[in-house]
Amino acid sequence: MQAVILAAGLGSRLGLNRTGYPKGLLRVAGRELLLRHLLLLSRYGVTEFVLVVNPRSRSHFEVFLARHPGYRVTLVENPYPERGNGYSLWCARSAVKGPFVLTMSDHLYEEKFVARAISGRGLILDREGRYVEPTEATKVKLQDGRVREIGKDLTEFDGFDTGFFILTPEVFETAEKVVAGREEVTLSEIVKEAALPVTEVSGLYWTDVDTPEDLRRAERELVSASVKGAGDGWVSRYLNRRLSTALSPYLCGRLSPNQATTLSFFLGLLSALVAWFNTALGGFLYQVHSVLDGVDGEIARATLQQSRFGGLLDSVLDRYVDFIFLSVLLLKVRPEGLGLLVALLALLGTVMVSYVTERFKGAYGREAYGTFPVLHYFPGKRDERIFLTFIFCLFGWLETLFPVLALLTQGKVLFTLAVFWKGRRWLEP
Amino acid sequence: MQAVILAAGLGSRLGLNRTGYPKGLLRVAGRELLLRHLLLLSRYGVTEFVLVVNPRSRSHFEVFLARHPGYRVTLVENPYPERGNGYSLWCARSAVKGPFVLTMSDHLYEEKFVARAISGRGLILDREGRYVEPTEATKVKLQDGRVREIGKDLTEFDGFDTGFFILTPEVFETAEKVVAGREEVTLSEIVKEAALPVTEVSGLYWTDVDTPEDLRRAERELVSASVKGAGDGWVSRYLNRRLSTALSPYLCGRLSPNQATTLSFFLGLLSALVAWFNTALGGFLYQVHSVLDGVDGEIARATLQQSRFGGLLDSVLDRYVDFIFLSVLLLKVRPEGLGLLVALLALLGTVMVSYVTERFKGAYGREAYGTFPVLHYFPGKRDERIFLTFIFCLFGWLETLFPVLALLTQGKVLFTLAVFWKGRRWLEP
Repeated sequence: MQAVILAAGLGSRLGLNRTGYPKGLLRVAGRELLLRHLLLLSRYGVTEFVLVVNPRSRSHFEVFLARHPGYRVTLVENPYPERGNGYSLWCARSAVKGPFVLTMSDHLYEEKFVARAISGRGLILDREGRYVEPTEATKVKLQDGRVREIGKDLTEFDGFDTGFFILTPEVFETAEKVVAGREEVTLSEIVKEAALPVTEVSGLYWTDVDTPEDLRRAERELVSASVKGAGDGWVSRYLNRRLSTALSPYLCGRLSPNQATTLSFFLGLLSALVAWFNTALGGFLYQVHSVLDGVDGEIARATLQQSRFGGLLDSVLDRYVDFIFLSVLLLKVRPEGLGLLVALLALLGTVMVSYVTERFKGAYGREAYGTFPVLHYFPGKRDERIFLTFIFCLFGWLETLFPVLALLTQGKVLFTLAVFWKGRRWLEP
Repeated sequence: MQAVILAAGLGSRLGLNRTGYPKGLLRVAGRELLLRHLLLLSRYGVTEFVLVVNPRSRSHFEVFLARHPGYRVTLVENPYPERGNGYSLWCARSAVKGPFVLTMSDHLYEEKFVARAISGRGLILDREGRYVEPTEATKVKLQDGRVREIGKDLTEFDGFDTGFFILTPEVFETAEKVVAGREEVTLSEIVKEAALPVTEVSGLYWTDVDTPEDLRRAERELVSASVKGAGDGWVSRYLNRRLSTALSPYLCGRLSPNQATTLSFFLGLLSALVAWFNTALGGFLYQVHSVLDGVDGEIARATLQQSRFGGLLDSVLDRYVDFIFLSVLLLKVRPEGLGLLVALLALLGTVMVSYVTERFKGAYGREAYGTFPVLHYFPGKRDERIFLTFIFCLFGWLETLFPVLALLTQGKVLFTLAVFWKGRRWLEP
């Protein structure tokens, strides 16, 4: 499949006008908007790109493409960019061979949006517009599932134009008529004239970037939209994620996900070391580590750098940090006999809570929490355990911590196994 | 797809002749031969069975089928079973509607055999005959990829007839001619007359059961063929499996896999308890537990009762046994300071060796050892750790055990992560 990306606009509201620097090459979350398009569209089957550019910005794109030689991109100039983005589409006609994706270089989509939109048809419509500024957005009015009216000033409308289209070359026949008739041609005019069919993709993150404020806002929203959630406990939802999603936008592009993982790991080790000398301070650093533990995944997803290895490394290092932190507390408390056994069960439990769900995923190839949402109701996820440990450290209740953790974690393991047991027949092939 | 199973033979060599009890209902590894056919063929797309029986055994089959109502089976009588198994095939003609599997009720196949044979064509040929008694087996001589000669007495031959065929209804036209010409008709005569094409499936386990010795031998071989191997270390290969595969045939049908898992778990717990009073004896029981730990999987695979939940439960319980056994040793040794930290790292290591490979499977959906065979070279698998622990317990070297285990297991975790890291680019999609 091909994709046509319109990039001939000059970004006057972003103050790029005079330099000829194109909007598509602005960085959001450490990556050029255009690179996001190339990355995401490639992941979903686009193998060839047609980039319609302004002659004044051509050299900027050439520099960019030389740095990313893995993509097959044809540059097409729009000699009259002032004639509008409809004219830009028209310029791409001879480079297009079959059905194609059409999108805008200054638009930004989360991965799930592209995954769903790519199998659609016509204009991709967002009925909810959850992330949309209604006064700025282009609205669409439908009739019989096709575009009837489109524009920024519609008062009655069915949804928002996401700037993402799945088209066939027939659209150029309509474009030819529209272009022949007037000087300035917006894409909307062609879309309306062609009465494009519509596919709904609602509730997912997309935006366009017009002003410097848009850029900053997009970074924040991209990080928020990237929170996975499935593995998050209560503490994470109401405390950790609020802090980490405020921090991550500043780190996107400055820190790689694996660097964030490593930093967080060393902070965890440091917290264990500090706990040896000062339990309360160590516990506090442990909780800070817990907040930072979310950053690597947020950065990875926001900058499209997720890797399975990164997730694996993060999990393994988390098990080490937990075990080592609790080991230091155990060395301080020096329980004897039964007390030691209970403490050891608490240590084992912190690893096993994760082991059982990971083993489940290995066996069945699906997420345990996604398959059995009831698992959420039993507390004992990592964020919750760490917060509990932090509180107990703060008050110096170390002797009580181990029995509580042992009960919590071993209870969660038992509960999880019972849920798997109940669901086993349903799951076997 | 349909399957025709010939079950009209009377098993005279098994002494079943007088009672009319059919060979297909003999139990091997706790399951009737016929039930194995129904189970395995269903797994690979057969939805309808045609069972050709001797009028004298019909009632036995009816009792059996009433106990297994989940299968669609048509009983067809061969009124003249003495006319041979070729005549039995002929009797099935009106019940067959399209391409079908043909096999014998007294034959036995491991699952992989069926998985491969089912997509073949004509006679399934075993060129190697690894498990075959050459004097007893039916041999096949080919010409241009088709059967030219077939019989027990061929001196020159290309492989063995496995008693498994993928046929089309055209075979009945040949059968009609052969049946019309003579009184006794073997299947081999029809196969030769039809000059069936041949598909090779070699090196996998299959056998037929003629004598009581065959029955016992089949149980042993089925268990041996069921050893997975991928997770086995040196101790398992050269000691544990030799013992467990000698034991498992007696337990098949008497003990369910989950019962075997539970028994082995309690023996593990018992070994930890005993170790508190007598380290050497506890260590010995721990090693016995390690041998029995293989039995559940062997029973499960030999009796076609594998379940993902069973595998999961087995893994989780293994982690508990290891951690608890070592905890008891730790309570006995009562190391202080650094010694305690090292002991704790040994405890963590025993869990993490398994955690990293399970996490890998969860992330990539493939076996770590199968993907990176180099992982086999670093010792530290469960069977090896337990044997080492047993030896150290025997000699009372408990203080030395923890540093050795800590180095071994943490080294293995690091090595495994390094292997994953090196292969990460190759694995990402």
